[in-house]
Amino acid sequence: MAQLRRDPIVGRWVVIDSEHPKAPKDFPKEDHAIRHGAICSFCPGRENRTPAEVDAVRPSEFSVNDSSWQVRTVPNKFPALVHEERLKKEGVGMFDVISGYGAHEVVIETPDHHKQMTDLTHKELSLVLGQYQRRYQYLALDARLKYVVIFKNFGISAGATVEHSHSQIIALPMVPKTVLEEIQGAEHYHMTHGSCVFCAMLEQEYRERDRLVSENESFVSFCPFVPRYAFETWIMPKAHQAHFVDLDEAGIDDLAHQLSDTLNRIKRCLSNPSYNFYLHTSPINYGRPNCYHWHIEIIPKLTRSIGFEWGTGLQIVPTFPHEAARFLRES
Amino acid sequence: MAQLRRDPIVGRWVVIDSEHPKAPKDFPKEDHAIRHGAICSFCPGRENRTPAEVDAVRPSEFSVNDSSWQVRTVPNKFPALVHEERLKKEGVGMFDVISGYGAHEVVIETPDHHKQMTDLTHKELSLVLGQYQRRYQYLALDARLKYVVIFKNFGISAGATVEHSHSQIIALPMVPKTVLEEIQGAEHYHMTHGSCVFCAMLEQEYRERDRLVSENESFVSFCPFVPRYAFETWIMPKAHQAHFVDLDEAGIDDLAHQLSDTLNRIKRCLSNPSYNFYLHTSPINYGRPNCYHWHIEIIPKLTRSIGFEWGTGLQIVPTFPHEAARFLRES
Repeated sequence: MAQLRRDPIVGRWVVIDSEHPKAPKDFPKEDHAIRHGAICSFCPGRENRTPAEVDAVRPSEFSVNDSSWQVRTVPNKFPALVHEERLKKEGVGMFDVISGYGAHEVVIETPDHHKQMTDLTHKELSLVLGQYQRRYQYLALDARLKYVVIFKNFGISAGATVEHSHSQIIALPMVPKTVLEEIQGAEHYHMTHGSCVFCAMLEQEYRERDRLVSENESFVSFCPFVPRYAFETWIMPKAHQAHFVDLDEAGIDDLAHQLSDTLNRIKRCLSNPSYNFYLHTSPINYGRPNCYHWHIEIIPKLTRSIGFEWGTGLQIVPTFPHEAARFLRES
Repeated sequence: MAQLRRDPIVGRWVVIDSEHPKAPKDFPKEDHAIRHGAICSFCPGRENRTPAEVDAVRPSEFSVNDSSWQVRTVPNKFPALVHEERLKKEGVGMFDVISGYGAHEVVIETPDHHKQMTDLTHKELSLVLGQYQRRYQYLALDARLKYVVIFKNFGISAGATVEHSHSQIIALPMVPKTVLEEIQGAEHYHMTHGSCVFCAMLEQEYRERDRLVSENESFVSFCPFVPRYAFETWIMPKAHQAHFVDLDEAGIDDLAHQLSDTLNRIKRCLSNPSYNFYLHTSPINYGRPNCYHWHIEIIPKLTRSIGFEWGTGLQIVPTFPHEAARFLRES
């Protein structure tokens, strides 16, 4: 029997279709064979084919834009938003318009064209996560920017256009709608319940246990009760923390372990699917740290939109999260 | 220079990337050659291969489920929601759960496997639109149902899994989030401005004219100032009307002309792309008809999500709507 489930934070309903539940074997498989290594602009030695780097991790004896890097961040060659733009706001009839002020950067996660994020050692992945934090800290200094989105696309179905393993960072002059709704929902919950809605969600996950995937000292991965996609998985710090950027070095190390564990479970369970992940954290200089709780949302790209979702905001999900979690636990 | 634009109804921002604006020739093309005619369950003569019909248009001398139909509506063989289910609500910890009560139907638009909606005559398309109204009226009699979504997927990229031309109808025990936000936004606008926000939008469209695509006596097609997708096009009744179901016979005829005109412009302009459309109308028994204004939203499927949108609700659109409208006007 199908179920309609409502997310208590943003008020989103989803349909979980249990008449024809889908197991990992029921989703189409994708081929991610390496194709473009020979001409890749992200590979070491081709640093001059990207815009000049804005940050990197490399041994201190080497200079900027040298090929000795372990992680390298460059502006997107085709940015949606640019930092040089003057921030200009205007009204056009009934609409608000802001100039395309912001930043759009690419974090090249490894010099090795043949490694994906799932292949990185925990140490290598820690360097990537540390780079996320450094870019966040840098961009947060600009008072005109309100939010920094850190996300990753792996595979063509997830929108990746470059196969060399990378993540993206977009900094915006406003808080985008989905995040804003989540924050407002969390604030409302805090006002009415006196506690963090994400902490309450974790309590319920630990009480019911059947949606838990894996955990370590600081982090837990679980399939949320109201997913928007089959096998959607969240990674959340167990202790309340509003800002990803407040995570200390030991926390970064734990997150590297948990992210690697979770992405590798998804890879094994679902035959290396395309996926997106995005880091939901507090807005820059957010003043109510008791309300919001940062986390990473991972969406394996297994199904196409059926059109219906675009028109209604109601997703149809073919797998119950407790079943997805069981498959992931066993992978 | 890129622009960030904010929709005044639901508060959604989009980025319009004008640094690299995309013209119709810049989007990948799709092949929609007919493949499955020989085994199609929607073709006349194979009526026993679908669930028994719930409505149809056919000459009165023939009986139900006979092959003489012009338009035929059947329950979806794999419904997300079923009408036989008992409506049951419960709380599971912090979450709300409703049983999968509702309806999921397929409107087969033509007996001819080789015709798509763009090939239908105005008379044939009027029959389809009339069928939408009849199904709406029938489903609206069920007091447990709150909203009826009428939508269409054309092409694999838009989520179509059957090539025989068809639309879908889903009836829900609640108003889905995207529609609810639009309605609440329209109510708020009406409260603060004393007028319909969609009427105000049409006024601005007629004042500025550069986003208009085409029009007839009763309807206008335009590319909205804050699109979520390149070449997104809306069809709206020029006169205020809250419910699609209130459209009279002459109006249905005008809508058939306008829908055919608009879908054919999109087909010619963008080399027959996949597309979704959905009809946004008032909830069943909606009590504030001055606030909401029904319309059809058409989304050609030209680009993939880049992952970013899922995490933020912020779309990046590669074509300005006034440029899209110019291409469509000239097609």
